[in-house]
Amino acid sequence: MTDPTSQPLRDGGYFVVFEGGDGAGKSTQVRLLAEALEAAGREVFVTRQPGGTALGQEIRTLLLHGDHVSPRAEALLFAADKAQHVDLLIRPALAAGQVVVCDRFVDSAVAYQGAGRALGAPEVHDLQQWAVDGLVADLTVVVDVPPAVGRSRRGEVQDRLEAEADAFHESIRQHFLAMAAGHPERYLVVDGTMEPQAVHAAVLERLRSTGVLP
Amino acid sequence: MTDPTSQPLRDGGYFVVFEGGDGAGKSTQVRLLAEALEAAGREVFVTRQPGGTALGQEIRTLLLHGDHVSPRAEALLFAADKAQHVDLLIRPALAAGQVVVCDRFVDSAVAYQGAGRALGAPEVHDLQQWAVDGLVADLTVVVDVPPAVGRSRRGEVQDRLEAEADAFHESIRQHFLAMAAGHPERYLVVDGTMEPQAVHAAVLERLRSTGVLP
Repeated sequence: MTDPTSQPLRDGGYFVVFEGGDGAGKSTQVRLLAEALEAAGREVFVTRQPGGTALGQEIRTLLLHGDHVSPRAEALLFAADKAQHVDLLIRPALAAGQVVVCDRFVDSAVAYQGAGRALGAPEVHDLQQWAVDGLVADLTVVVDVPPAVGRSRRGEVQDRLEAEADAFHESIRQHFLAMAAGHPERYLVVDGTMEPQAVHAAVLERLRSTGVLP
Repeated sequence: MTDPTSQPLRDGGYFVVFEGGDGAGKSTQVRLLAEALEAAGREVFVTRQPGGTALGQEIRTLLLHGDHVSPRAEALLFAADKAQHVDLLIRPALAAGQVVVCDRFVDSAVAYQGAGRALGAPEVHDLQQWAVDGLVADLTVVVDVPPAVGRSRRGEVQDRLEAEADAFHESIRQHFLAMAAGHPERYLVVDGTMEPQAVHAAVLERLRSTGVLP
């Protein structure tokens, strides 16, 4: 495991990740932040996990359309996608001084793969950290909504299956909140039930305090 | 890391791996051993790394024909192939009491990926062991030949490039020999410059001592 605090400084680059359940409003926040950064004269690179590279797309096709994939093979394929994404896109952008804004990163992989699967969250975390060679976001924004809110935003109605799904989404939510509680210096939890502009304002305030935005 | 000695006993199954450089004569030995085991009434499952599963084939196609793949992504894809191979083919065969004879396994992956690449052998070893969930061969036969012998068997002539290649193959050979020296109870080193039947006889003698062959 790489100690995040030992990560070498990057010349001017800054890495922001948005995490949160489906329906939390992450993609809106990614767009609002990118616009604000560009308006302030920063070069911005917007990307998302999973995907982003040709190899990542092919891996995804394998996972969706292939035969049965064992749990370890699946976790390794997801990790390969992450490694390629970091090596080919994210690190070069950071090295070029850009602000990288990424929709989901390691925490999502750990939360989703580690929740109710054959592999534990610590194992998936170690594998993911190896894949990204210890890269840690400078700021991870957790856009936090209760599962029922995320569900209604996704246009789903409540039934028994959804109630079970709520427990799944709640466990993912708790993973994000636990990560944030353990590392407040590089996490920001915002209440995703607020209006998008209010969420956005909280993100801007935090980035101004770091000097990324004037 | 899983302690190999803590591995649970398998009901009757036995796992034999052949390792060695190209041109060492592994495939001949795999065939001779499979025939001897079957003649003795054992159920045998012959397989090889890489490959063996549909997913493994698709991963190999990705690696051969795709765009640039970063070193970590490549190592993770190889590991995913190994995980699928173990979960879908090798463990079920062992659980069914079969003798599994495999041409190359974890040691080859570590030796080839770890030799002169961006990643170190210990890192690749940990990743591979995680992929196979700690599965360790009951017996690994190292068919040992000097690089020059392997080269001449592959039909290559000596030139300056081949001399450099010899150094690469020698480093791989030394990896196998070091593994064998560290774990003599589950390794057998045989001189691959002997006649194939003499190599085979050495393998049979070792397996008779373990009770796998009468």
